[in-house]
Amino acid sequence: MGATGESSDIVEQQGARELLLDTASSIMREGDQVDISLSELSLRSGLNSALVKYYFGNKAGLLKALLDRDMTTIVKSVDALVEKDSMDPEVKLRRHIAACIDTYYAYPYLNRLLMRLVRDSDESEAQRIADKYLTPLGQAYDKFIGAGIKKGVFRQIDPQLFYFTVTGAADRFFSARLVLRHCYGTDTLTENLRDRYREHTVDFIMAGILAPPAA
Amino acid sequence: MGATGESSDIVEQQGARELLLDTASSIMREGDQVDISLSELSLRSGLNSALVKYYFGNKAGLLKALLDRDMTTIVKSVDALVEKDSMDPEVKLRRHIAACIDTYYAYPYLNRLLMRLVRDSDESEAQRIADKYLTPLGQAYDKFIGAGIKKGVFRQIDPQLFYFTVTGAADRFFSARLVLRHCYGTDTLTENLRDRYREHTVDFIMAGILAPPAA
Repeated sequence: MGATGESSDIVEQQGARELLLDTASSIMREGDQVDISLSELSLRSGLNSALVKYYFGNKAGLLKALLDRDMTTIVKSVDALVEKDSMDPEVKLRRHIAACIDTYYAYPYLNRLLMRLVRDSDESEAQRIADKYLTPLGQAYDKFIGAGIKKGVFRQIDPQLFYFTVTGAADRFFSARLVLRHCYGTDTLTENLRDRYREHTVDFIMAGILAPPAA
Repeated sequence: MGATGESSDIVEQQGARELLLDTASSIMREGDQVDISLSELSLRSGLNSALVKYYFGNKAGLLKALLDRDMTTIVKSVDALVEKDSMDPEVKLRRHIAACIDTYYAYPYLNRLLMRLVRDSDESEAQRIADKYLTPLGQAYDKFIGAGIKKGVFRQIDPQLFYFTVTGAADRFFSARLVLRHCYGTDTLTENLRDRYREHTVDFIMAGILAPPAA
């Protein structure tokens, strides 16, 4: 940490905090796992691992901060979509599914990180995670899928069960990275495969949910 | 181990091996994770943990044996379905999706165990797992989805990408157990919820894949 005055110290600290999160995210993404070693984090970021203690308390605090960073982005973007009153439910859902694919391409560890933190946290922290990220997503699904059902655009389905269909399809693909390498000699984290899987998933799920045209 | 003669020893050993696998499976299922402590395994099974070393070498060997047990069942049942030449592709797929839901209800840890073993194994063992379990499933999808596309019953989709849609939807639900408890105050591993999710998933995926009736 430089000693060039308070304001530049703060700037530098914010940069270091973000850099630690970005680096932790890259390590998990590349290694297809939800754990990191602090020595690798220090090596890759070029920052002293004492900074993890400074910003996050410990490794668990770092993982929590990473979950907060990634989930906040998702909840905000789903909320923004739900609030577009003039947008057709079908268009909304297409955009949402495409965004899910892009999210799991960017953060393939996200669902596993969420499960790990809920499992390893005490009751009140697990409840905070559920209240802050999962319940709002559930409510958003109720609204924007419910609106499509009411308009007769979507079939009668349970929005909460549908949530698992969408996120499961998105999550599974990108979290199977190391498995795929051995089966197909390919890496799932290429933009080309992401684009193919996005197209497949949007088409497939829309075909599954759209109400058949009235006879 | 009793000393009542060779043949009863063998019977006892086979029973003990199965009991260790069954108990490890229950611990992972209930704890929503893919790890076990040998002391818990010993306590729950009533067997000395030295038997793990005897039958499996070490914990990694036990995990591998559990994966082999569960995946062999799946590959066999998918192969049997594919070989029913007289069965309609649509009926086959409905049965397969329902079986997937039941499999992940019974072994919710299965995909995570697979990924863990592929990641933690050396190159040749990872390749063995891929060759023995994943490639046959991929080939089965090519055959029975391909047959439906050829008959015009299914839309033109990529069977390999479709594999991720199906297993992702099945896996995600039952592996979100602890998360759901905090959101909905419910446990996903109830037969009632399994049945509801099975119905939802079969309906949804069939609606997604069936070709629209000819105009």
